[in-house]
Amino acid sequence: MFGSTLSASADEPVFRMHRGGKISVRPSVDVADRQGLAMAYTPGVARVCTAIAESPELSADYTWVSNTVAVVTDGTAVLGLGDIGPAAAMPVMEGKSLLFKRFADVDAVPICLACTGVDEIVATVAALAPSFGGINLEDISAPRCFEIEDRLRRRLDIPVFHDDQHGTAIVTLAALRSAARVAGKELGQLRAVVAGAGASGVAVTKMLLAAGIGDIAVSDSKGLIYRGRDGLNPVKAALARRTNRAGLTGSTESALRGADVFIGLSSGTVAEPAIASMAPGAIVFALSNPDPEIHPDMAGRHALVVATGRSDFPNQINNSLAFPGVFRGALDTRATDITEAMKLAAADAIAALVGADAAVDYVIPGQFDERVAPAVAAAVAAQARADHLARR
Amino acid sequence: MFGSTLSASADEPVFRMHRGGKISVRPSVDVADRQGLAMAYTPGVARVCTAIAESPELSADYTWVSNTVAVVTDGTAVLGLGDIGPAAAMPVMEGKSLLFKRFADVDAVPICLACTGVDEIVATVAALAPSFGGINLEDISAPRCFEIEDRLRRRLDIPVFHDDQHGTAIVTLAALRSAARVAGKELGQLRAVVAGAGASGVAVTKMLLAAGIGDIAVSDSKGLIYRGRDGLNPVKAALARRTNRAGLTGSTESALRGADVFIGLSSGTVAEPAIASMAPGAIVFALSNPDPEIHPDMAGRHALVVATGRSDFPNQINNSLAFPGVFRGALDTRATDITEAMKLAAADAIAALVGADAAVDYVIPGQFDERVAPAVAAAVAAQARADHLARR
Repeated sequence: MFGSTLSASADEPVFRMHRGGKISVRPSVDVADRQGLAMAYTPGVARVCTAIAESPELSADYTWVSNTVAVVTDGTAVLGLGDIGPAAAMPVMEGKSLLFKRFADVDAVPICLACTGVDEIVATVAALAPSFGGINLEDISAPRCFEIEDRLRRRLDIPVFHDDQHGTAIVTLAALRSAARVAGKELGQLRAVVAGAGASGVAVTKMLLAAGIGDIAVSDSKGLIYRGRDGLNPVKAALARRTNRAGLTGSTESALRGADVFIGLSSGTVAEPAIASMAPGAIVFALSNPDPEIHPDMAGRHALVVATGRSDFPNQINNSLAFPGVFRGALDTRATDITEAMKLAAADAIAALVGADAAVDYVIPGQFDERVAPAVAAAVAAQARADHLARR
Repeated sequence: MFGSTLSASADEPVFRMHRGGKISVRPSVDVADRQGLAMAYTPGVARVCTAIAESPELSADYTWVSNTVAVVTDGTAVLGLGDIGPAAAMPVMEGKSLLFKRFADVDAVPICLACTGVDEIVATVAALAPSFGGINLEDISAPRCFEIEDRLRRRLDIPVFHDDQHGTAIVTLAALRSAARVAGKELGQLRAVVAGAGASGVAVTKMLLAAGIGDIAVSDSKGLIYRGRDGLNPVKAALARRTNRAGLTGSTESALRGADVFIGLSSGTVAEPAIASMAPGAIVFALSNPDPEIHPDMAGRHALVVATGRSDFPNQINNSLAFPGVFRGALDTRATDITEAMKLAAADAIAALVGADAAVDYVIPGQFDERVAPAVAAAVAAQARADHLARR
């Protein structure tokens, strides 16, 4: 429905901007002469190598590793484009690297993999791990993404974070806290419907449950997920046990009647009458990109608060409010993991920046609110220390 | 023997220089506002991804891939330090990345692997390949390095280059051409002794043979390599078939009597009387780092031309004269491989810069001779086109 905003002539600047890529590697020390070269490279560098070989923790002081994140994808679930492969995924991964640097001074390296098997991806990322201070998994399709993240988190002693899951969940929860405030509703009393049980739908649902949302119904392409539905994969079966208290069956739209919150993470659509059937003071987060499940103007006729993933409407819910600060906080503390508590702390920190200023068109800070990444980093770092996962 | 030049106090600047690492990732486009963000990231980036998915060759135009090299090591043969592991190898790999940028504007990313098996390294690098325009293997111990490079060259359609082998071989051949000119000798009439049959010893020997050096004897830690010697690995057995015409047995030093050229790539030592026993106008390249096989002043009492790997003596033979330009030339032409002919062309280009100015203390350009990388790049690119390996 938004396709018309991207005409062919408007594309030209996009292609011009991307020509040659969007990031580069820069020396951060000077090697202007033979003496500089002898320090940065042989023979001087041998002293630094020897020191690290004797005391491995010095790697964090004398290499760039402790400030780096690998942005890893297999190209199977890129934006709303699906399985476009590793080469075509690179512009997105470069974009993430750019945002990591812009918002949190993290050196992020895009890594697009030529393999899609869970075992191969886990082995490859584990092999790379000594080169990076953290692993940001990106645009890997469900349900493989869950197992890949779980296994890497167990195997590695550096943070592993699947951004499509947790970045989305953090920012969504932050926005929901503010939206509930605007609606004058308690989080624990909300009834929510989440459309989509892919990476982000599952993670958002888990995070809302952890934050104490009262009742959530989740749907996938076959309709609402309920206990005992045929053919549920293990991830959805686990979701079914923790959601849909009323045991609703049928369509997403049918569940919206009287619901307080709709969160769309589905690449699907939702019809206006379904939104109109929600409870008074309804909250609609239509987050599919680039095309929201319902046009925000249409949703706004019925809902109190409307958010999307787009930058050209109010209330943009975008991961970039979360991942730079999350990794900044994790790297600053040399945390060994990014826990649920750290993610909840990140969401709270973002919501706190909106605070009492929350309004129907302001439930989340803007993308360029320079307070966000430092606030998220501080909250994540504090929680890492509280969880005893910080190494400094 | 050079340890005294690295006193504890002199080390302090080295550690200060390396603090926080030596490279960083920088955005090369501006995302100062919402519009910039919408082009660099969602929704604008989707257009670029779609274009690459439809026409994969556009990846070279609209990502940084075609200007990048992965500097890959497993940390098993780092400088003269040996198997110090991936974390301790990172300062060297960052140094290479820095030199790639400084001398040839190549964006190089250091990748230190947590695995050492040939199969694992090949699988890991192959999985990474879509992210990079070339693979620079570094400091991987022999004989695994030979098989790893061979298998990756066959498997990938981007250049794979083991710098310890071929970088050293290119610069050594370039210096030898100039040294022979100074000595008034023809390359084809030289009798050479190469001490060391690791990565660089094997590669230098192969390249000298390809350049037409008359006779070469190669030694390892057990002495000279000859046909039928017990326990030769396949690489050394192949060398034995192509070298040591006279079938010499015994020590490196015994073979030096009457030889024209000594090339040390051994981490060992050679005694002064052995150098004194060489032919008039002898050429001594004592290339072990940081401690040459013989002190250059001592060698200079007997040899006409003396070179080392060190920056604090004349005639520094260092890979950094080769690898930046080699990859620049390969990337500029999107070459699918780096062939023997391309390496020979690189050596010739370096030797040509010295040309008729060759002298006993000037057989190789200085590290900061800004003519070198462009000349090497041009020669490699021309040869890639001649070999029909260029994709543009």
